[in-house]
Amino acid sequence: MTATVTSQTARATPPVGSVFDESCSARHALELISGKWAMLIISALWQSPMRNADLLRKIGGISQKVLTETLRDLARNGLVIRDDFRAKPLHVEYRLSPLGASLSNALIVLDHWAERNFPELDAARERYDQAHATADEQ
Amino acid sequence: MTATVTSQTARATPPVGSVFDESCSARHALELISGKWAMLIISALWQSPMRNADLLRKIGGISQKVLTETLRDLARNGLVIRDDFRAKPLHVEYRLSPLGASLSNALIVLDHWAERNFPELDAARERYDQAHATADEQ
Repeated sequence: MTATVTSQTARATPPVGSVFDESCSARHALELISGKWAMLIISALWQSPMRNADLLRKIGGISQKVLTETLRDLARNGLVIRDDFRAKPLHVEYRLSPLGASLSNALIVLDHWAERNFPELDAARERYDQAHATADEQ
Repeated sequence: MTATVTSQTARATPPVGSVFDESCSARHALELISGKWAMLIISALWQSPMRNADLLRKIGGISQKVLTETLRDLARNGLVIRDDFRAKPLHVEYRLSPLGASLSNALIVLDHWAERNFPELDAARERYDQAHATADEQ
């Protein structure tokens, strides 16, 4: 066994990053995909392409500004593709790239976790706040 | 088939939320777990309990203030348990609750996605920036 890595093996081995290392690009990738708006947009596009107005309607609370900026950021990182059909009136659709689609599978799991478990989180918060209110009174 | 929901069936059916609805607690749950620091702390605790100093060392770039606040928030929501061993010197450990452990399984998938795919995101960003720089020159 040797710890020496030749440039040959370095090329052959896929790069492995660490999200715990703040100087690693893997951390930047996690930061991009861990924003709630990025998550919700990618999840919304999971089933089919959508137009701007559809996304604005589907994702409660998102502003046009944030939607535009997040879509641009996702397109820049190769996760979302913007299809301009060069039609009049303007017809633009957003869809997931294969890379975005692979990410959406992981995000859907997280969405479902939140949708299934939020009552437990709500209950825990209530217990915690009651316990701490009691502690404060003593 | 009827759409009427009696309080009887409402109690029997597990609540289902939507992360797309900003007034739903499921969205609040997603907001809590989609912060990058919350994600990294839960992922870090995946394998074993950790002390404050261990977490500070493991998670590059986190400040003591953010670590303290995020741990408190995760404890308040029932995802992390703070064990105070009442020892001198002070010995406190943080570990995942069963709820936190179930979440960590979903988060690890996302961490691994970022660690595997960041080179593709980096390459996409480079292509996008080059294409847009060229477009700007024209």
